[in-house]
Amino acid sequence: MRILRDVYIIGAGETRYGELWERSLRELAVEAGLRAIENAGVYSRDVEILYGSNSLAGIINGQENIGSLISDFAGIAHNNIPAVRVEASSASGGAALREAYLAIKSGEYDLIMVGGVEKMTDIYGNELLNMMGSILDREWESFFGATPAAMAAIVARKYMKDFNVEKEALSMMSINDHENASKNPMAQYKNKLTLKQAMGATNVAEPLTLMDCSPITDGASAILLASDRYMKKNKLEGAMVLGSGISQDYFAVHNRESIYTLNSAKIAAREALKKAGKKLDDISLVELHDSYSIYGLLELEDLGFAEKGKAKHLVYEDIKAGGRIPVNTSGGLKAKGYPLGAVGISQAVEAYEQVMGKAGQRQLKSVDSVLLHNMAGTGSTSVVHVIGGE
Amino acid sequence: MRILRDVYIIGAGETRYGELWERSLRELAVEAGLRAIENAGVYSRDVEILYGSNSLAGIINGQENIGSLISDFAGIAHNNIPAVRVEASSASGGAALREAYLAIKSGEYDLIMVGGVEKMTDIYGNELLNMMGSILDREWESFFGATPAAMAAIVARKYMKDFNVEKEALSMMSINDHENASKNPMAQYKNKLTLKQAMGATNVAEPLTLMDCSPITDGASAILLASDRYMKKNKLEGAMVLGSGISQDYFAVHNRESIYTLNSAKIAAREALKKAGKKLDDISLVELHDSYSIYGLLELEDLGFAEKGKAKHLVYEDIKAGGRIPVNTSGGLKAKGYPLGAVGISQAVEAYEQVMGKAGQRQLKSVDSVLLHNMAGTGSTSVVHVIGGE
Repeated sequence: MRILRDVYIIGAGETRYGELWERSLRELAVEAGLRAIENAGVYSRDVEILYGSNSLAGIINGQENIGSLISDFAGIAHNNIPAVRVEASSASGGAALREAYLAIKSGEYDLIMVGGVEKMTDIYGNELLNMMGSILDREWESFFGATPAAMAAIVARKYMKDFNVEKEALSMMSINDHENASKNPMAQYKNKLTLKQAMGATNVAEPLTLMDCSPITDGASAILLASDRYMKKNKLEGAMVLGSGISQDYFAVHNRESIYTLNSAKIAAREALKKAGKKLDDISLVELHDSYSIYGLLELEDLGFAEKGKAKHLVYEDIKAGGRIPVNTSGGLKAKGYPLGAVGISQAVEAYEQVMGKAGQRQLKSVDSVLLHNMAGTGSTSVVHVIGGE
Repeated sequence: MRILRDVYIIGAGETRYGELWERSLRELAVEAGLRAIENAGVYSRDVEILYGSNSLAGIINGQENIGSLISDFAGIAHNNIPAVRVEASSASGGAALREAYLAIKSGEYDLIMVGGVEKMTDIYGNELLNMMGSILDREWESFFGATPAAMAAIVARKYMKDFNVEKEALSMMSINDHENASKNPMAQYKNKLTLKQAMGATNVAEPLTLMDCSPITDGASAILLASDRYMKKNKLEGAMVLGSGISQDYFAVHNRESIYTLNSAKIAAREALKKAGKKLDDISLVELHDSYSIYGLLELEDLGFAEKGKAKHLVYEDIKAGGRIPVNTSGGLKAKGYPLGAVGISQAVEAYEQVMGKAGQRQLKSVDSVLLHNMAGTGSTSVVHVIGGE
């Protein structure tokens, strides 16, 4: 008859994001984890379990059970600290955060390391295309030659036609990401982007140019989740996980009610906001899963910040760091980077730093709550978290 | 300020285990899930989330995010029921069961489907060897040519030498598995095994013969986990998850304190028994993770049923279905089969059926509690559950 506990992020750490050819999967994971421990100011022996999020190590690195691999390499295997991997494609990070959150709420644990890592540059060419196909429905999409970029382009074309949206609106999402990433020391791309550069880049899948597509990224991010009990006992401070939601849509895009509506995002956001007791007006920052710029627009709409087809009105001023609803102060998937299974944790690091006033040059003036949206592939799974002060 | 809940298995379903060349991953998963729903007598719309366990779909099937794939194919995507995959190599099933157990305890859910599936016959030859290498430490073991069978053989040789154990003791574990599997309609191998057959089979990695090694298996198992609240409200019956434990050892065998001591099993069992409030004497059945017969002996010792080196005294009478400490009434990994990521759920199905008196010809006379040990690879991760009446 124990009582459920409140859950806090009490520390965060990351590697630099980028093409880190000389670094291995386990090196990246351990570096991020150690930085999180140092940042939180706790003893590593206090960590009771490791939740690892990763999407592609089986395919890319020929390695499963990477939770165990990382726990071992971190030098905590002698403490017999267990490790579990949570996988939901590019929503793995959000899903792992949610599992750890529930595990603390259940009363089983007081301190959990949640780490996301992806080492993507170990393969290239056709193998890389095949790997990207694994996040779509293999039998109904990849098999017929569709890639994630192609699926996003199909969605973008219909959306732009039905709602009279210009390509410029898509480019503005990427420009915002690059502007913000220029202030993030961990980001893969720190260069600012002009409209001309974004619009004029090589086509990947028309209408999407290279500047509408997030990059191949190596990187790791880690946070420490603690119960209120542990936090108070050790006189620590943290950002509270106020609410969590997860939902699902059809895997293959053609089955969905509408190809440009992310039902899973709608439902997960409603759930997370309700549990957090927050309204959209309380949200000071949204971290979107903009693996392709078109998804940034769809997410703004389906998370509730604009009506369907109207996100184009937000992309010039509102989404800027000083705007009405700041988007991706981290630099987002386009410019901070897109290490598939680590994205959900990357977003949580940004939320923690913004809520705690530790975001350096990216710091927003007044932060109530941060909404994180992490999505699998084309939107089959969505995980939303709301992080904030108490 | 809600109160933690008790957790029950209220239904179970499986596919037949075997080389199911004509069946796909998602077909197998859905068949097991639907049978579990039918068995429990609940509405599928009551299921709130799906926890999927699988180890190798990324490598074998080129498909990640299989939680989503299965939820979709089961026809529950339109209910937006989310799905998360839990992976810890061959301990994926136990790890998924544990996550679902914690999720109900946290108060977040009342009814969860936990399904394990592995479709292993989609690859063969060198690809299969490569796949099996993914469950070892790729950089320290597989890279140098070690396979899981080779690692088990190294352990067996040293164990047999240090404790004066004859090969016959190993064979007896397999003979017991085949004897029990002959009564399990879902088992891959229903033939009984003689000592001569077991000892005289082709060597795979000396001293291990083909009859010491568990097979390549396609199959799926599913259970429904419910809160006490849901169970009582719907006037259902179930087997209680009394305790759960998870632990970890070094990934690579050469780093461990002793190559024939499964520290992770020791710690996980102690934890699960303590939480269950049970002693070893209360255990009416042990389902072991005997991917290789040698591990069956080690597990009997490290779980506490015999001193190190002494399990050989249990293998002739005690482990039989009518013996002092029955082992693997399901048929175990050797004869029921070894669908990697599904094993932990396969074990839970046996526990449920034995506790509820639904095990048919395999039914034990008097069942207090069942102990399940699910292990990753060579023992890097161990998950132990104790299932019983109240």
